[in-house]
Amino acid sequence: MKVNVVKNILDANDRIAMENRQRFDQCGLFAINLMSSPGAGKTTLLEEMGKGLKNRFKIGVIEGDIQSTIDAERVAKAGLAAVQIETDGACHLDANMIKSSLESLTLDALDLLVIENVGNLVCPAEFNTGEHAKVMLLSVAEGDDKPLKYPLMFRESKVLLISKIDLLPHVRCDVEMIRKTAKGLNPTIRIIEISSYTGQGLDEWHDWLAGQIATHSTHREE
Amino acid sequence: MKVNVVKNILDANDRIAMENRQRFDQCGLFAINLMSSPGAGKTTLLEEMGKGLKNRFKIGVIEGDIQSTIDAERVAKAGLAAVQIETDGACHLDANMIKSSLESLTLDALDLLVIENVGNLVCPAEFNTGEHAKVMLLSVAEGDDKPLKYPLMFRESKVLLISKIDLLPHVRCDVEMIRKTAKGLNPTIRIIEISSYTGQGLDEWHDWLAGQIATHSTHREE
Repeated sequence: MKVNVVKNILDANDRIAMENRQRFDQCGLFAINLMSSPGAGKTTLLEEMGKGLKNRFKIGVIEGDIQSTIDAERVAKAGLAAVQIETDGACHLDANMIKSSLESLTLDALDLLVIENVGNLVCPAEFNTGEHAKVMLLSVAEGDDKPLKYPLMFRESKVLLISKIDLLPHVRCDVEMIRKTAKGLNPTIRIIEISSYTGQGLDEWHDWLAGQIATHSTHREE
Repeated sequence: MKVNVVKNILDANDRIAMENRQRFDQCGLFAINLMSSPGAGKTTLLEEMGKGLKNRFKIGVIEGDIQSTIDAERVAKAGLAAVQIETDGACHLDANMIKSSLESLTLDALDLLVIENVGNLVCPAEFNTGEHAKVMLLSVAEGDDKPLKYPLMFRESKVLLISKIDLLPHVRCDVEMIRKTAKGLNPTIRIIEISSYTGQGLDEWHDWLAGQIATHSTHREE
């Protein structure tokens, strides 16, 4: 009985996610669902993406937080169009929350939409929001055993950004072990080591985004 | 309707949590529910607690993980009695999971029971397991905005361990800001800065535990 209820919720979520995806495709934008533990550096990365990409692409951000509008304020200051969802206790964003927030963004004008999920390495991976790609951050400060302990998010993600790589000399973390176990769970996952402080890896990340944006915006012309 | 279902689940959980608590009190042990984001250092801290306390106290550990038995193996190697709960996807431990795992521990022989929760700064705070105290870790690598963004866990915890304090020179984190906002949410919260690498703060943490163990084991004599 309980299983059925959960399954119905997920079915309903997937239906709304599909509607969201259709809107994204109609607008010719590329949408990512950005996920990680709390404090892995999602918002700081968005600030850097603002600096590196805002002259080339129009970027919108949906900020998911349990409480506070800190992140949306930071992102808006970085020159990106930001909307805040306060989940009021909920541990993840779902498709319906995204649908409701789309009214506050001029989707037609966007090239890239970033859905910054609640900081949580577990629950957000279970809910599609309509994104084209899930992207996760794992900070080296979190350690190298995380793919084995939180496998679903690694399985679901198209890109793994190993963040705070500048901290590597100061923590016990074997990056090769992360690469090996993540690839074991998800052989096609793209892995990029980044630091928002030193800039390492950001060009590669921005190039990947630019490629995806080009692919998806072509659809607009058709 | 949905609210009622959630409320019933929480009521049922609280009832079982009360039963767990009664067993802990009958056995004269002190039980904590240890919570944090993934990778804030819960298991490494347990290894250090093994070194610092195992000659004085008998310590049992219930390890909660979505998958894998890595942590229980680490803790057992540190000389503590360990039981693993694999939650198979669930993002938190609840009272019933703890109840089921108590059979595998010789509770009468224990002075301290540590319930190491799933790495998640959100959901575990909503579920009592019967513990006497919730204790949370926040790593300085996670940043100083976390009390504002994840307030429930800071409200629920008796002790906040600010972990990985050795990383402070390498990250942007204002510890005074964490102290101020955490105290704003929870004026009686005890805050200790620790590093499992350098040993900073561990004596203070162990002394706090020893005091609590003394208080609770007195009940056994009565």
